[in-house]
Amino acid sequence: MRAVDLIRKKRDAGELSREEIEFLINSYTHGDIPDYQMAAWLMAAWLQGLNRSELAALTEVMLCSGELLNLADIRPRKVDKHSTGGVGDKTSLILAPIVAAGGLVVPMISGRGLGHTGGTLDKLESIPGYNVNLSLIDFKRVLRECGMGMIGQTAEIAPADKKIYALRDATSTVESIGLICASIMSKKLAEGIDALVLDVKTGSGAFMKREADSVQLAEVMVETGEQMGKHVVALITDMNQPLGRWAGHSVEVAECIEILNDRGPADLRELSVELSAWMFYLGDRTRSVDDGRLLAESMLVTGQAKEKFRQNIRLQGGNERVIENPDLLPSARDREHITSSSAGYLVSTNCEQFGTALAMLGGGRAKKEDSIDHAVGLEFHARIGDRIEKGQPLATIHYNSAAKLAEAKELIASSYQIGESAPEELPLIRRIIGG
Amino acid sequence: MRAVDLIRKKRDAGELSREEIEFLINSYTHGDIPDYQMAAWLMAAWLQGLNRSELAALTEVMLCSGELLNLADIRPRKVDKHSTGGVGDKTSLILAPIVAAGGLVVPMISGRGLGHTGGTLDKLESIPGYNVNLSLIDFKRVLRECGMGMIGQTAEIAPADKKIYALRDATSTVESIGLICASIMSKKLAEGIDALVLDVKTGSGAFMKREADSVQLAEVMVETGEQMGKHVVALITDMNQPLGRWAGHSVEVAECIEILNDRGPADLRELSVELSAWMFYLGDRTRSVDDGRLLAESMLVTGQAKEKFRQNIRLQGGNERVIENPDLLPSARDREHITSSSAGYLVSTNCEQFGTALAMLGGGRAKKEDSIDHAVGLEFHARIGDRIEKGQPLATIHYNSAAKLAEAKELIASSYQIGESAPEELPLIRRIIGG
Repeated sequence: MRAVDLIRKKRDAGELSREEIEFLINSYTHGDIPDYQMAAWLMAAWLQGLNRSELAALTEVMLCSGELLNLADIRPRKVDKHSTGGVGDKTSLILAPIVAAGGLVVPMISGRGLGHTGGTLDKLESIPGYNVNLSLIDFKRVLRECGMGMIGQTAEIAPADKKIYALRDATSTVESIGLICASIMSKKLAEGIDALVLDVKTGSGAFMKREADSVQLAEVMVETGEQMGKHVVALITDMNQPLGRWAGHSVEVAECIEILNDRGPADLRELSVELSAWMFYLGDRTRSVDDGRLLAESMLVTGQAKEKFRQNIRLQGGNERVIENPDLLPSARDREHITSSSAGYLVSTNCEQFGTALAMLGGGRAKKEDSIDHAVGLEFHARIGDRIEKGQPLATIHYNSAAKLAEAKELIASSYQIGESAPEELPLIRRIIGG
Repeated sequence: MRAVDLIRKKRDAGELSREEIEFLINSYTHGDIPDYQMAAWLMAAWLQGLNRSELAALTEVMLCSGELLNLADIRPRKVDKHSTGGVGDKTSLILAPIVAAGGLVVPMISGRGLGHTGGTLDKLESIPGYNVNLSLIDFKRVLRECGMGMIGQTAEIAPADKKIYALRDATSTVESIGLICASIMSKKLAEGIDALVLDVKTGSGAFMKREADSVQLAEVMVETGEQMGKHVVALITDMNQPLGRWAGHSVEVAECIEILNDRGPADLRELSVELSAWMFYLGDRTRSVDDGRLLAESMLVTGQAKEKFRQNIRLQGGNERVIENPDLLPSARDREHITSSSAGYLVSTNCEQFGTALAMLGGGRAKKEDSIDHAVGLEFHARIGDRIEKGQPLATIHYNSAAKLAEAKELIASSYQIGESAPEELPLIRRIIGG
């Protein structure tokens, strides 16, 4: 088998066999196929697409390129959630405690923020002392003790994906449904889970702006997961505005603690409960999603989820007192308000711009190596459909460095579209795929 | 400007500006853009195509990446011919002497055979002593003295093409009309010529099997050349069977000497004269192509072309006595006949298989670094349309090593299709593009 022939085959819209995909990915991972041949193949795959059986093979080969977490000795079912990313998307920090408190195990291997989206690891690291770099042995110990753990991808998990992702990033081959699916599913299935709930975002703050694309990605991921013997469901959820009232790191952790204290914004609570409900159901903890919803609610109302998060913070080396006293989280020195220059209704936001502005202020990365400021944040005062008066504050920037403040402010201000009549209400949860 | 953005632009079928193409090609040639980014761009260009202005820019940037031969101090017009390659295609060795004897200058920078096609340099090197590796200074001296010179590509000529071609070869991005055009034209225009005649082959022995593809390539090359201020014409010519009666190296040189002695097969003579006629016309040597044809004929009939070739061989270090005595050329030890297993008419050949068989016998290369046997050859006894009797010899293999003889023989035998009725006659020269 030769790489050049497999490139030609995909270039000409042919279907690669399982053996061919295995040869390509394994040879590349071991350094026997050079970057430039893989880059040509990736571009061919981007433009010509991958069909369902190619995708299943690609996912499985990438999954098997590294270690698979063996959690067989932990009795309860293992479930996880993956989100395709957005602005203010912080449900992991809420649903992992809910689901662990409810009796399942959540072995969550997460990513960092990139571009305009935030990442769970960055948010967790705003908690003083919290260690996301546990060895797999320590990770399993934490899981055994408290039923949830949150760490970053290790070198052992899906190394093929790591190498391929870096190449995709440098060759404009990221936004391909097939390649995204294989990348996500190979990492998630390496966690040794029984079931997976996917939160596929759609709208102006999501990677997929059009609902049809989000649905297609969701269908492909659900089918790929099912083919590999897992229970998988995908919720298509709205990302035309930030989730909750805050975007940043420490500010998002504080907002999650609000929810765990049975307070906080309705949209964030609704989505966290809904995702938890599906996790309970797919993990065979409840007989229906409705029962799962009741269980999730009770974990919030009784404070059991909050206690679970406290226990997890302690076990991962963090300062658990942040639960009672969120002021222990880093906070920004200065603030700047953005007010509306007209009256009317908030009809839409260019949500991606919020994420870009946050990154500009030090709260995000342009490159993976960049360091970030955990204290900066954006506070949102208005939601789509709200009546807006002229001069009313729309958002507040919490910042430390004024270097790019004017630019960020302009980006945020221009993100709001104020119109004369109230827009149609968009449901937060648009569709359920699979299940 | 960033390579990743230019890859994305082409991936999304956008048009790159002249500045963007300049940045891409020059940065790659200087090593500032890595192979993997160029590979992704090439695949995107292969699949999305390049429009006429992108092509002109690409050609010019590649041309200007190296030295341009300055032949301004040589008075006559400089003209050349380029063929897209085939089996038995040996017109360069005939038309260069004709055109130089007729008063123009032919500064021919040629390639080697690759895959199933032969290369002018390999043929010339079968002449004992003939040196195709002249420095550009010696090349100019030869041109000044005898009006023709034939050398290989030097490191100074279009280095961008050299680097990009190697990458295309390894990433299945060779057969793209745009990339082929830029590669050919950047090298040919570096010769400092006034006019160029293109011989674009079509049929079972050509890279382009379908006439429509050959016409498209021809149109793109003619337009690109015209945009750069050159007189360019393309002849679409038949390659459904070998040109002439021989394929190989020394055997093809001998066949050319036949033609220069005013003998030899009609098809080879016809095409050589036709291409020469266009070179005379585009080089302003004659007022019409018809006049050019008469001049070319007279160069053959009077022996002036033969004397010109003799002079060139001497000046490039070769043994000029091969002109009188072709037995001085290397010859193969053994021969093997291939006879027809049925009676009827020869309706078609899979001409590429002849070239592949020749390569198999040591007369061609799979990789650029391979060495070749100049003495092996194929002799063709039948042409399409001929009446064939059972047991009649179709071809003779002249070989030295029997290692792959059976395989080659099978390939040649299976290349002939014998049918019950004579096929329609295909004209050798199908169409003229430009002019």
